[in-house]
Amino acid sequence: MFTRSLEVRAPRRGLQDITAPVVKAVGESGVEEGVCNLFIRHTSASLIVQENYDPSARVDLENFLDRLVPDGDPSFTHTLEGPDDMPSHIKSVLTQTSLTIPVRSGTPALGTWQGIYLWEHRDHPTPREIVVSVW
Amino acid sequence: MFTRSLEVRAPRRGLQDITAPVVKAVGESGVEEGVCNLFIRHTSASLIVQENYDPSARVDLENFLDRLVPDGDPSFTHTLEGPDDMPSHIKSVLTQTSLTIPVRSGTPALGTWQGIYLWEHRDHPTPREIVVSVW
Amino acid sequence: MFTRSLEVRAPRRGLQDITAPVVKAVGESGVEEGVCNLFIRHTSASLIVQENYDPSARVDLENFLDRLVPDGDPSFTHTLEGPDDMPSHIKSVLTQTSLTIPVRSGTPALGTWQGIYLWEHRDHPTPREIVVSVW
Repeated sequence: MFTRSLEVRAPRRGLQDITAPVVKAVGESGVEEGVCNLFIRHTSASLIVQENYDPSARVDLENFLDRLVPDGDPSFTHTLEGPDDMPSHIKSVLTQTSLTIPVRSGTPALGTWQGIYLWEHRDHPTPREIVVSVW
Repeated sequence: MFTRSLEVRAPRRGLQDITAPVVKAVGESGVEEGVCNLFIRHTSASLIVQENYDPSARVDLENFLDRLVPDGDPSFTHTLEGPDDMPSHIKSVLTQTSLTIPVRSGTPALGTWQGIYLWEHRDHPTPREIVVSVW
Repeated sequence: MFTRSLEVRAPRRGLQDITAPVVKAVGESGVEEGVCNLFIRHTSASLIVQENYDPSARVDLENFLDRLVPDGDPSFTHTLEGPDDMPSHIKSVLTQTSLTIPVRSGTPALGTWQGIYLWEHRDHPTPREIVVSVW
């Protein structure tokens, strides 16, 4: 079992492409044919696999989730850390904390149009730790 | 690590039961006690484990997601490929690109009422590649 | 491959912290550095990793999903088992049937604020089987 922690700090709230550092970590594992798992050790940021080609898809995804789970919804009681705190937990639950991806020829076997994204849900991003395991 | 690619073309938009071909691929792996992973190499179709008994549950699931993420929402900017394109990416993000399931006695250890489904989100389905890994 | 079935019966509909029994099962596997998978063998209860500190986050999560997928929605056709049946399938699809988590020093490598939860979606909970696999 190869394991590596990635630290990523998104420049802003939203989707941040992390395909390159994941490909690098998987390459360093030396595993040619196998499986890798990414696990984010936070509850206000999450992981997804999504369209990597057209930036407009990223914008529409962010807007959709912001409308579905609006900041400062008056029904929220968990508000100590600000209007973007409780939405960030809900958005994490509706997306992924953990992604498992096959490895072929030493690299994640993503489809042609797939990229791996960190979805930062807070307005003032802090560094996020993602554990990469390869076997 | 056993690995096999399944190609599935759904007859229409919606949920398509793929339990049988997955059971077959896992059986061919020769793994008796282990774990399998399914990964779909697309961003406009996804995977879920769901009720396999009553077809009405499938219909209600499809209708719910179609209402939550309506075709041709005027707020979408990613519209080049048609009114069902951006919804298909959002629906994929709200469901699963990757499923990990235990294997017992050479077959996926699904519950009595569980089936594995491809969820095709496009109106004109193309063949979809699902990578099955078993270890 | 170490495998263990946990049986959990939630006292009520909602989020039930299952971190302790999962930590115990992973500890019993003897795996020091590896990965574990949790798989729930049901389609009306699900799994999530979420904030484990402030109970108000749990309440807001439950309320959000209850509003997004209301009991007894008149558009549902799958109603034989009561007004909380179809919502329970949809809520399962929007959350997780399967969680994969790295193992470090013999325990799930959760972040400081992360707990593992069973999300019971039915009003009259029955015992739920969760398969823990560790490798």
